[in-house]
Amino acid sequence: MKFNVLKEDSLTSARLGRLATTHGIVDTPAFMPVGTSGSVKGVTPEEVRHSGAQIILGNTFHLYLRPGSKLIASLGGLHKFTGWDGPILTDSGGYQVFSLAKLRKITGNGVIFQSPIDGSEHIFTPEMVIEIQETIGSDIIVCLDECIPFPATYEYTKESTDMTLQWAERSKKAIKRYDSGLFCVVQGGFFKDLREYCANELVNTGFDGYAIGGLSVGESKDMMYSVLDQTVPMLPADRPRYLMGVGLPENIIEGVIRGIDMFDCVVPTRHGRRGYLFTQSGHIIIKNAGYKDDESPVEDGCDCYTCSKYSRAYLRHLFMSGEILGLRLNTIHNLHYFGRLMNAIRGAIEEGRISQFRERFYSIRKEGDRC
Amino acid sequence: MKFNVLKEDSLTSARLGRLATTHGIVDTPAFMPVGTSGSVKGVTPEEVRHSGAQIILGNTFHLYLRPGSKLIASLGGLHKFTGWDGPILTDSGGYQVFSLAKLRKITGNGVIFQSPIDGSEHIFTPEMVIEIQETIGSDIIVCLDECIPFPATYEYTKESTDMTLQWAERSKKAIKRYDSGLFCVVQGGFFKDLREYCANELVNTGFDGYAIGGLSVGESKDMMYSVLDQTVPMLPADRPRYLMGVGLPENIIEGVIRGIDMFDCVVPTRHGRRGYLFTQSGHIIIKNAGYKDDESPVEDGCDCYTCSKYSRAYLRHLFMSGEILGLRLNTIHNLHYFGRLMNAIRGAIEEGRISQFRERFYSIRKEGDRC
Repeated sequence: MKFNVLKEDSLTSARLGRLATTHGIVDTPAFMPVGTSGSVKGVTPEEVRHSGAQIILGNTFHLYLRPGSKLIASLGGLHKFTGWDGPILTDSGGYQVFSLAKLRKITGNGVIFQSPIDGSEHIFTPEMVIEIQETIGSDIIVCLDECIPFPATYEYTKESTDMTLQWAERSKKAIKRYDSGLFCVVQGGFFKDLREYCANELVNTGFDGYAIGGLSVGESKDMMYSVLDQTVPMLPADRPRYLMGVGLPENIIEGVIRGIDMFDCVVPTRHGRRGYLFTQSGHIIIKNAGYKDDESPVEDGCDCYTCSKYSRAYLRHLFMSGEILGLRLNTIHNLHYFGRLMNAIRGAIEEGRISQFRERFYSIRKEGDRC
Repeated sequence: MKFNVLKEDSLTSARLGRLATTHGIVDTPAFMPVGTSGSVKGVTPEEVRHSGAQIILGNTFHLYLRPGSKLIASLGGLHKFTGWDGPILTDSGGYQVFSLAKLRKITGNGVIFQSPIDGSEHIFTPEMVIEIQETIGSDIIVCLDECIPFPATYEYTKESTDMTLQWAERSKKAIKRYDSGLFCVVQGGFFKDLREYCANELVNTGFDGYAIGGLSVGESKDMMYSVLDQTVPMLPADRPRYLMGVGLPENIIEGVIRGIDMFDCVVPTRHGRRGYLFTQSGHIIIKNAGYKDDESPVEDGCDCYTCSKYSRAYLRHLFMSGEILGLRLNTIHNLHYFGRLMNAIRGAIEEGRISQFRERFYSIRKEGDRC
């Protein structure tokens, strides 16, 4: 994996980059749609690519439990299995173990958890998590970490961060394949000194990329941005920085301004399935009665399949009727919205006008819209 | 609407035809995928067309209740609203009133029913049902009828058939648009004389096409074929014959042999969503553990998107994981199976070998497969 910074903004920390992986190029800043269980929910790989996405995220936790990493390997790996031939980043599974699994027990060695599918008991150690990701053929592998709950005490946060650091060291030693990149995760909660401590230690060990974890867990956006302000400057300039699980369009722009190169979030897909559609001027709740006879597309000027062919009235009808085509058409639009947003962000950095872009982003939105 | 018989088989009643509608040509024998609520469930109009289907069916009952025929008209009609620009046949709603609605009351004038969506009370008269179908812009309109329950007494069947006949006469008089075709429905249950009586009366009145209703309601396939053997010869040779709600591939072949030109059924779409996939050698239940590591496509030689890109193992995984992409990929394959079947049937009639085609259809199937 190779990463090059192509341009740095003069007024902000935003930067334009290019990440080269075994399965192709990713222009950064990049947004990764989430393909939890081997499918970006509701859409085909071609539809994902057409939205402008160049890389997707797969959930190690889900894929390990079903269909299983060995089965995926025996079927030619995750790319062949799912039909997505571009780059794939797999997360560490840490977040899911702590949010979705039951009866967990954390030891220095790893974490014991119960499958939410069948109740069977499993253990994730840092070494196993690397092996799973290598087995399925991920392009970018993430070290096991604990996503610290919010709020948490200083003591809990310190202890957990130390464990994440030890796990990161063990992860680096466990790597057997050299065609993937290895990302560590900066934890440290909402304590400045612990974030700094964690970032320093990880940088000393040295990784191909640096994820920032433990954000978007219930804190205010000011708290999130403050952690970025503290943490990003401590990370090496020549390595990609990935803000995990974030987020809404405005979080992405604020992240970019603060030097983030990569993002992932279920927002475009999950919100789409719930009828929450993104537009430049704010969001649309498609079930609202006002769209009943609205002949206009979700967003004027959007070139996605959904906007080029269907009216808000039809999308509302599909949603009200529980038609699965509606989930798909909504998802396609939202993915395109995110694809266009990232493209516009890259163009703005290229042309040295990301600050103006940010200003305009806020100015054309309906007042009070938080999307 | 115009219909031409292009070729008649010498050994069977099978025939090749062409139906010309305002929205395009339909080669017969034809299968119509069902777009219940303005969407063939899970797929786009382009995917429907790519499967080989040239005409789809819309359910008057569903569309009348939601989003409503006037709303559809105000949005430019059903074609524009749904994005399907080919021919659409709408059914009479009779079947749904009798199978899905509550608290119904049948009078000579029409039928009173309660909406399954919100409990509101509605009435369908023959005139209203024509008006609804004309309002939404259907290419082929079907007269209101009663789909007689199975089993039913002779007396019930006689009375109901008389009502259907009166409704058909009233329907013909109610027609205001002359760019659509009007089909009546032959009822008469499983009584030979009542089927003959009904067919004769309808032919005397004269319609653009003749649907055969009240089949696939729980009777044996021999009973179904026997009704076709009796009824089809009574219908005018120069008008299309449509076997409503049928059916499985073998029902279609047996229908074609008996002179049927058009079919519709939810089988490819509904079975697809349930993981029941059609192949020439029989059906596949995709959730079966045997497909867990099966790298082959659903059907070797199938050129559908699903078979050209995905393994049975992946489809099984999507099904087991409840991924909506699985519903769609399964539906695409099944629609293609039906599209290829109809194409092969038309080719066999063209080349005078439909009897051999039928023999081969049975001979290459796994023993005991009823699909």
